[in-house]
Order: sequence, then C-alpha cells, then structure tokens
Amino acid sequence: MQFVLRLDEVIRNKKSLLCVGLDTVMEKMPVALRSQPDPLFAFNKAIIDATAPYAAAYKVNTAFYEAYGLEGWRALERTFRYLPADVIRIADAKRGDIGNTSKMYARAVFEQLGADAVTVNPLMGTDSVQPFLEQEEKGVFFLCLTSNAGSADFQHFSDGKEKLYERIARQVQKWNVRGNCGLVAGATHPQELGALRKLTPELPFLIPGIGAQGGDLERSVRLGTDENGLRAIYNSSRAILFASDGEEFAAAAGRAAQETQQALQKANVK
Amino acid sequence: MQFVLRLDEVIRNKKSLLCVGLDTVMEKMPVALRSQPDPLFAFNKAIIDATAPYAAAYKVNTAFYEAYGLEGWRALERTFRYLPADVIRIADAKRGDIGNTSKMYARAVFEQLGADAVTVNPLMGTDSVQPFLEQEEKGVFFLCLTSNAGSADFQHFSDGKEKLYERIARQVQKWNVRGNCGLVAGATHPQELGALRKLTPELPFLIPGIGAQGGDLERSVRLGTDENGLRAIYNSSRAILFASDGEEFAAAAGRAAQETQQALQKANVK
Repeated sequence: MQFVLRLDEVIRNKKSLLCVGLDTVMEKMPVALRSQPDPLFAFNKAIIDATAPYAAAYKVNTAFYEAYGLEGWRALERTFRYLPADVIRIADAKRGDIGNTSKMYARAVFEQLGADAVTVNPLMGTDSVQPFLEQEEKGVFFLCLTSNAGSADFQHFSDGKEKLYERIARQVQKWNVRGNCGLVAGATHPQELGALRKLTPELPFLIPGIGAQGGDLERSVRLGTDENGLRAIYNSSRAILFASDGEEFAAAAGRAAQETQQALQKANVK
Repeated sequence: MQFVLRLDEVIRNKKSLLCVGLDTVMEKMPVALRSQPDPLFAFNKAIIDATAPYAAAYKVNTAFYEAYGLEGWRALERTFRYLPADVIRIADAKRGDIGNTSKMYARAVFEQLGADAVTVNPLMGTDSVQPFLEQEEKGVFFLCLTSNAGSADFQHFSDGKEKLYERIARQVQKWNVRGNCGLVAGATHPQELGALRKLTPELPFLIPGIGAQGGDLERSVRLGTDENGLRAIYNSSRAILFASDGEEFAAAAGRAAQETQQALQKANVK
C-alpha cells in the first residue's frame, strides 16, 4: 500500500492528526526514572502507553539518542520496536547525502529501525534522495519550509518567480511517483502553509511547531489539511513529553496529548 | 587553538592534503574479515594502520555504520577512538536541525564520538547551525557545492546576482567568527571551486570527489588550495579502501593512499 494511503487510513481510524515527538532529554525527565537501566526507553515506554490512544504518528528525533552514544542508539532501537503497529512511525533524521551514502541511511532507518517514514534534507538533489524512495510503503517527508527563524536565510531565497522552498515543493511533487513523498512545513508560517497546500494538493505534510514553538494550531489545521481534512499531521514534542516532571508525568502527557488531539479535531472542520 | 590553524599545522606536519574516507561496506571487504567479531572496526583498524603516514585527515561517514544498527554504532565509536591524534578526525554526518536538536547532534559528534570536525547541512539557517559553532577548536564543514549530479537541482538556484551555493558560502563566512567554519565543495566542479576560493579566501575546503567520483585532481588542487597551498583537504574513500579485496587489502590501501598523497603534493605547487 502506498504510504500516503496508509497515512489517510491511520488518520481516519485513529480520528487524530496528532504526531507525538519523542525528543527525550535525560535532564528533563523525572528524577526517579534517571537511575533505571535504560532511562530513555523507560520514559518513552511510559509516554507511548499514555498517549497511544490519541496519536496518529510518533516522530522519534534521532539526535536525542545519538547524543547518548551507544546507550542512546539502543534506546532508539527499543523505542521503534515498542511503537504500536497502528500508527505511523517516523524517524526524524533529516538525512541526505550522495546516492551510495543515502542508500545506507535508508537501510538504517527502514531496515534497522523499522521506521515507516523518515525526514530527508533535499539540498543535494535528485540522486541523493532516490534511495529513500524505492519502497512505496515507506514515506519520506522532505524539509521544505521549516518552523525555525533561520528558515528565512536560504529557504526564502528567490529567483524572482518562486522561492527555494516552493521550488523544493514542486520538485518533491515530481519525485512522488510512488505516492510516498511529503513535505515538512512549519505551523509557524500558516500563510505559506496554505500556499503550499494549493501548490501540492496531494502531498502529505508533517507540520512541526504547534507546541513549544508557538505556531498557530487552528489556522495551520485549516490551511494545512487537504479538502477532506487529511494529508497533514501536526507534531508536538516538548509540550506533551514534559507536561509534568513529577511522578505523574505519563498521565500529564496523556492529558496533553488528548487535549492537543481534540484541539486538532475541532479545528479540522472539513 | 582555532580549528583552521590546527588544520594548517596538520597539513604542514604531515605534508599531506589527503583525507581518507572510511565508507566501510561489509560486502566489499575481504571475506576472511567478515567473520570477525567486529568486522567494520577490524577493517578500519587495518586501513588506518596502513594509511596513517599519508593522511592529514580521516572522514568517517556515519551512514555506513548506522546501516548496521547497534553493532555499527559500536564500530563507529571504536573507529574514532582508534584514529591517531595527529590527524583531523571528521564525522561526515551532514546533520542540521532546529537549535535544540542541533545541540544534541553537536554533543553526539564532538563529545560522544570525539570528532574534531563535522559536516553540516545549512538549509535550516543560522539558528540551526549555531550549536555546532560554540567551540573554536571544533570545525564545521558546511555543504555548499556538492560533488554529485543532483547538486544542480537546488544549489545552482539563482536570484540573478548569485547562486544558492554562493550565498551559502558568503553566509558561512559570516558564521566564521571563531575560525572554525569551512565548506564542502566537490572536485567534480573545479571551475566553481576556484570561484569559491576567491569568494572566501580564508575558509578551509573539504573536497570530495577525487577518487571513484572521477573529479579532476590536479585542477581542483590548483584552484582549491589558498595562496600558501593550504586550507583544502581532498577526500578519497572507495579508491583507497577497496583498492584490493584480497588478503593484501591493507597494503594495497596504503599504496593507493601514498600515491594519492603524492599526486596531491605534486599538484600543490604554491
């Protein structure tokens, strides 16, 4: 099944546009957990158990695991194995390199980690992204218009007719021959999000920035989803994971996930 | 000591512009090695021992280790620990993300792996690269004009005055307040390499593409080094690592490294 059709199915089945971002930080988790044998995984397991009813997807940010070396990589692998099968499991890795190297990154995320989708940086062009696109059931979200301030530095570079991020979007549309391509577009730019939706009506969007980054949830749902209220998932990481740093952290994360899922559904009136 | 000054010192001391790329692939190594407990590291150790007299730098491509999961990450860590202290140890990771994530990637490469330098993708702009630039002794090579065919897709996008890769180069110059920034520019584009050298006379270049990718070694040395014959290192991976797949693979790699180092020195007439 093409990735995009599976994403539609998951959003419908789970009645959710929510992606929970597992940007797990040792220093922010409850003190009691830090002394466990695999604290990163112990924390993630509790968060997944508490938030799974409300999430259509999980986005595991590889940086937060690599920072802990071998132990971190083990926790990354265990986290992917623990994620339920009825959600989209995204490796937020932002990889991209020449063809023979991208082939190895694709193997790492799809085969070793078992991710359903990956985030890829498209700067190196067509031959650098092809190895990620070989399997129709594996999704690739390409960095297009990111949620941070620095997105203005290069992504808004313009040839007078279009900006770089628009050119990226059009190029991704061409790469989408197997129905497995999407875009990363930040909720911090709702207006541009609407324009991207018109430019690429069928591509799924992975939309970060609705939580701690302060993006406009309601507008970005109205403008980011397609005409059926599909093709977009909204990521929140810190606002859910660290809703509380007390013993009840998991229950607090569950409540935060439920509230975000409901706010997304309420905003999704199509 | 600023990274750029240390690089100058290493190039002078080792009389070498050669960077050996450790893009290690299980299927290409001698059959006898594959049954060892940690074949990736066993292979790298033999290669490092054989090539160290001729190398100013080693570039370890993280993809090739991530592709083997936990075992691969262990080999990656062991390889960095084994590299000699008198060379530049580069993590070729092509990372880059929003600030709080890049901070974790910087921790992964500089603290966990102990790399002296890292390759970074600048597409997400200033705040995404700052966490990599905090220590003057740690170098950052930014993707600018890559060696592959796909580099034409976005890196040549132009606003009529300059191309994206030139804008990246000028921006990296601004980021270079601690003498720790450099550019990745492919030997497959010697003419543009010369123009980049003029645009950013002081930045060190990491130049891939002279080996299996077929770039023009002589021209790219003449045009890529600075007026003192410094500030550029030339990477070769496959042509050295897999010079032979027989039992004498390490000796063959040593000879290939020596020949490349000599060819680089011969071309570096400044």
